[in-house]
Amino acid sequence: VTALDRSAAEALDAADPLASFRARFVYDEDPERIYLDANSLGRLPKQAIEAVAERVREWGARLVTAWPDWIDEPARVGDLLAEAALGAGPGEVLMADSTTVNLYKLAGAALDARPGSGAVVADAADFPTDRYVLAGLAAARGVELRMLATDPVEGPGAGAVAEACAAGDVALVCLSHVNYRSGALADMAAITRVAHEAGALALWDLSHSVGAVPVELGRTGADLAVGCTYKYLCAGPGSIAFLYVRRGLQAELRSPIWGWFGQRGQFEMGPAYEPEAGIARFLAGTPPVLDLASTEAGIRAVADAGIGRIREKGAALTALAVALHDERLAPLGFLLGTPRDPARRGAHVALRHPDGRRIARALIERANVVPDFRAPDSIRFGLPALTTRFVDVWDAVDRLRALVETREHLEVDPGSSRVF
Amino acid sequence: VTALDRSAAEALDAADPLASFRARFVYDEDPERIYLDANSLGRLPKQAIEAVAERVREWGARLVTAWPDWIDEPARVGDLLAEAALGAGPGEVLMADSTTVNLYKLAGAALDARPGSGAVVADAADFPTDRYVLAGLAAARGVELRMLATDPVEGPGAGAVAEACAAGDVALVCLSHVNYRSGALADMAAITRVAHEAGALALWDLSHSVGAVPVELGRTGADLAVGCTYKYLCAGPGSIAFLYVRRGLQAELRSPIWGWFGQRGQFEMGPAYEPEAGIARFLAGTPPVLDLASTEAGIRAVADAGIGRIREKGAALTALAVALHDERLAPLGFLLGTPRDPARRGAHVALRHPDGRRIARALIERANVVPDFRAPDSIRFGLPALTTRFVDVWDAVDRLRALVETREHLEVDPGSSRVF
Repeated sequence: VTALDRSAAEALDAADPLASFRARFVYDEDPERIYLDANSLGRLPKQAIEAVAERVREWGARLVTAWPDWIDEPARVGDLLAEAALGAGPGEVLMADSTTVNLYKLAGAALDARPGSGAVVADAADFPTDRYVLAGLAAARGVELRMLATDPVEGPGAGAVAEACAAGDVALVCLSHVNYRSGALADMAAITRVAHEAGALALWDLSHSVGAVPVELGRTGADLAVGCTYKYLCAGPGSIAFLYVRRGLQAELRSPIWGWFGQRGQFEMGPAYEPEAGIARFLAGTPPVLDLASTEAGIRAVADAGIGRIREKGAALTALAVALHDERLAPLGFLLGTPRDPARRGAHVALRHPDGRRIARALIERANVVPDFRAPDSIRFGLPALTTRFVDVWDAVDRLRALVETREHLEVDPGSSRVF
Repeated sequence: VTALDRSAAEALDAADPLASFRARFVYDEDPERIYLDANSLGRLPKQAIEAVAERVREWGARLVTAWPDWIDEPARVGDLLAEAALGAGPGEVLMADSTTVNLYKLAGAALDARPGSGAVVADAADFPTDRYVLAGLAAARGVELRMLATDPVEGPGAGAVAEACAAGDVALVCLSHVNYRSGALADMAAITRVAHEAGALALWDLSHSVGAVPVELGRTGADLAVGCTYKYLCAGPGSIAFLYVRRGLQAELRSPIWGWFGQRGQFEMGPAYEPEAGIARFLAGTPPVLDLASTEAGIRAVADAGIGRIREKGAALTALAVALHDERLAPLGFLLGTPRDPARRGAHVALRHPDGRRIARALIERANVVPDFRAPDSIRFGLPALTTRFVDVWDAVDRLRALVETREHLEVDPGSSRVF
């Protein structure tokens, strides 16, 4: 019996101060299934069921007379999120649109605020939508999209960013806080500092860090941020995203999408667009009100648990996964695709294997474990603190080991990579 | 007893072939209330309650494994809408984002497809978000925003559009099919024709016509369209909007927002953005899955009733409102702000009065009638066929008449214009 016997995982669960939070979520699927793809779609908070139903009832009973209450929801829920997970102040965060559209709005605003600059810096290892949106903006604005050639397991470093900004022609540095494949956690403070030293703005995609690790937008001086709510914030499939604009920067920036919800005196419906003074200028169209109900439920779970405790348990869960990888998977040809230092990673781990796509498929079909897969070779285990037990990690690795040891994974069709 | 006695309205209700559709919707507010603001927020379909709850359950039980089903929803529900209400073919309509964001994407794509052109034509009487979005795009692209000085009650005419396009420098004509204030219905076929003759594309905002009157995108040769679903489609507050791109035009246009949901081989996550061949290229970020459930319920009600019958009843409802205006309101200083020819209006009427703002407020506070108000002087009565009775129109006008006759409206504070 080693330290990595299953009983060690059981002991960690028994001592887990967040164990009771599991009961706030729904586990309606096959009880033998181990769900490790909450970094794609987080579990349903029980509170969300009632919150959404209540919002639907409100629609039916109050109709348009409820709008004076609903209209402040994007700012109110944004403020909740700012305090619970973002280290941001009131009036700095807004729930709005999708991550993609928010990234377009904020990166577009940043480029427009730096006319005559020559480049935007991004990361070749970053999530597709970030790279694509920036490529589109760069092409439209006639600026260079300067790609860092980051090792995904390392994540982008301040040195590389400083180098990319050295010519002084960069308007914007746009990076992910936690890398979607590797889980590498970037040094937001150091990178923001070198961006600022070069006269550039720093925009952070928080999709894989919000609700998993503390984000300190205020302390690090980050200028802009966007992120989704359907992973660690458990807000539901395709739920409304968020955006952050540092207070001191709000008056200077203007969304490229001049929508009526960003208009000062919206219901005067005046002839000319004049954006709101504060964060509301980054709204575009009518916000999805049903969606905001489930989103608030998810954010409240994170707020109640406390992002510090969530971070601590997340680090312990990934540490267990790393230790189990080293002991039980590495001998089978696996490579760890995630930083070994817990301070340098988020709440998911990547297990790389040349046969990764087939193994991920076999895990689902033969072992009742749901991971996801990211090309070319990464099986991701997402380990959100509020809904994952240490024994889940132990059991998942055990089933994975058995599968590959027996070479059973070779029997499945790798099939589609339609895993989110 | 005149033809406009209440019994005439009762007789119309008794003969109404759509009367049974009322039972598909929720009427949970004060039963004495007359709700005439469904052109801002339509009633809750009973089917939507269960559809949303079921989608929430599916999230809880299937988690990410449901995404292979959900991912086609924007196109599938778009196809339903295309057939039920838009006169468009499969693969031409997509549920996505908000109306504002969709307008930005399609107008931006149109301008990008006509580089070197000098202007976009819009209507000074159009809804604010349309004017603002186009102003932002025109400013960013360095083209002129050429405003028609349309009489809102007339609506934009083909002659005025032809004149605005006469110089041959127009890339895009962007108009609303039904005017948000007056209800004037534009001649989509004639205006699209003159736009095409001048080498311009035609983009239609259908927010106030979809689900109220037949829209014939295919027959009229319209190039592009957007619209919202929370009015006559009863999809819920802030529900997902839609966009239309004529099939023959899809390959030529490219959204300015290069999002991962528009990417060919999305889950290959390749290095460069390469848009999907078809309509999917106009998606941006992850679609709101809960929202799509309520949206489908609303669209199904329209599909089942048939847009032809809806149009017929809508014309009869507005005709009753016009007749009652003439007989009972005009003597009190009201002016009809809506075309008199039923073929030239949608399903709402505007009753103009110098004291309109105060009267609208008094209707809500003193007469239990919920209209909305649009500056400077229009009280709107929205009369969706599926949820409005002829006696509702009769009673609302009767209460309005009594209120103004007794000058009781002068006792209320006009208050905010926060009516949607």
